[in-house]
Amino acid sequence: MTRTELFENIKKKGSFLCVGLDSSLDKIPAFLKKYDDPIFEFNKAIVDATYDLTISYKPNLAFYESMGIKGMISLEKTANYIKKTYPELFLIADAKRGDIGNTSSMYAKAVFEHMCFDAVTVAPYMGEDSVSPFLQYKDKWVILLALTSNNGAFDFQFMEDKSGEKLFEKVIKTSQKWANQENMMYVVGATKSEMLTDIRKLIPNHFLLVPGVGAQGGSLEESAKFGMNDTCGLIVNSSRGIIYADNTEKFAEVAREKAIEVQLEMKDLLKGKGV
Amino acid sequence: MTRTELFENIKKKGSFLCVGLDSSLDKIPAFLKKYDDPIFEFNKAIVDATYDLTISYKPNLAFYESMGIKGMISLEKTANYIKKTYPELFLIADAKRGDIGNTSSMYAKAVFEHMCFDAVTVAPYMGEDSVSPFLQYKDKWVILLALTSNNGAFDFQFMEDKSGEKLFEKVIKTSQKWANQENMMYVVGATKSEMLTDIRKLIPNHFLLVPGVGAQGGSLEESAKFGMNDTCGLIVNSSRGIIYADNTEKFAEVAREKAIEVQLEMKDLLKGKGV
Repeated sequence: MTRTELFENIKKKGSFLCVGLDSSLDKIPAFLKKYDDPIFEFNKAIVDATYDLTISYKPNLAFYESMGIKGMISLEKTANYIKKTYPELFLIADAKRGDIGNTSSMYAKAVFEHMCFDAVTVAPYMGEDSVSPFLQYKDKWVILLALTSNNGAFDFQFMEDKSGEKLFEKVIKTSQKWANQENMMYVVGATKSEMLTDIRKLIPNHFLLVPGVGAQGGSLEESAKFGMNDTCGLIVNSSRGIIYADNTEKFAEVAREKAIEVQLEMKDLLKGKGV
Repeated sequence: MTRTELFENIKKKGSFLCVGLDSSLDKIPAFLKKYDDPIFEFNKAIVDATYDLTISYKPNLAFYESMGIKGMISLEKTANYIKKTYPELFLIADAKRGDIGNTSSMYAKAVFEHMCFDAVTVAPYMGEDSVSPFLQYKDKWVILLALTSNNGAFDFQFMEDKSGEKLFEKVIKTSQKWANQENMMYVVGATKSEMLTDIRKLIPNHFLLVPGVGAQGGSLEESAKFGMNDTCGLIVNSSRGIIYADNTEKFAEVAREKAIEVQLEMKDLLKGKGV
């Protein structure tokens, strides 16, 4: 998917919401367990109930891997279902991969060839040759970890060099040599939205994937205030706050209500910015 | 597996060799394709031909994921076969995972509960809560990326703070607060073995997983010279140099010959150190 297509979809839907499909057997409604593939049924119901309010879905691969082969089947079925039924949606593999060059190529093959994802999250620690294999695919995206939403972000990401440049800033700056705003985005956690002003000085035009709104305590309003640009420039993720809002037979309906709440706020924020 | 058990095995075998099972369909001998699961047949033959010369096997998950569900089945079968047939071998999931706490728990569940690995490689970028869930398992290990063997290592891992401390040193120092020599090892690439003297000042007793010997150009002798300690302290990986040494029907036999060459060198190096 191109940057233009993504932005068109944001304008059309008045939304920059990504729903995180962090689906696990111990959290989905119990009645779904009568199905052969409860996780797929859960995801399908969530997507069917929210697709018109979102621009993106983001399964986190850890949840599927934790269920072994069965989980990987649920993941493939989910990705295929979304891409076939709602091709305009931006499908993110939240995988945080990264390895030496010939190995990263294999990870890229997994998410972009074997599966039909539009984008993958990548960890920057191993540098250029661990990231560049993911950039060899036309209209596919790398979403590089810059400033994550968790407490552990303070362990290394804020390390400063002699000039005062922080590690996450160095990651953003250095990776500009490998990619551009048409094939790279950055993860910037909503829990650290006060840093967005500085980050926008480095990358005014890039899209940012913003996790941490909702269960992790980040604010949508703050993220938009400091991070939104002329083409929106934000994909804000909410996982638990939407998909696990209810665990009765009405779970999809309640997920829709929660998504509507977020989408209405997003519509206002886009309007306020003149997008 | 405990550190003592690992060391006992090293002494018994006169080897600190780990064979990397980076197995892919386009590289294994063509005749194996007649089998239902060529990758498993390949791995099984390599392991059966080399198990007495090695202390560890390390499938890199990227290679299996690139083949989709089929690949994941081959991976699980391989891990189960090794643990059932040769329980003394140290089985490493080379996965380079890491995510926010509740998500890293899911990755830990995947490799330690759903699969039977003894250890997993983890990327440090997201800090403590991305690593600690892997440490909750008794006798299981985290192998944290410190200094990797690829060129991209120079992008961020050598970044220096005001006191002159490099990022990879900070990773080693900081992570000492989360774990100890009984449950954490570090990846230090053989291509950067000259750094091992400094690293040994920080962690004299920890085991190091040393990739990059062979195809990547790292030297076993140099790694041992600068990195070996009283309990060996090294697991040296070779992948392509052993498993792809031949691609005829004799591939397992030739892999054994290559493994013998390495093991004999290792035996001498251990003897030289009085281990």
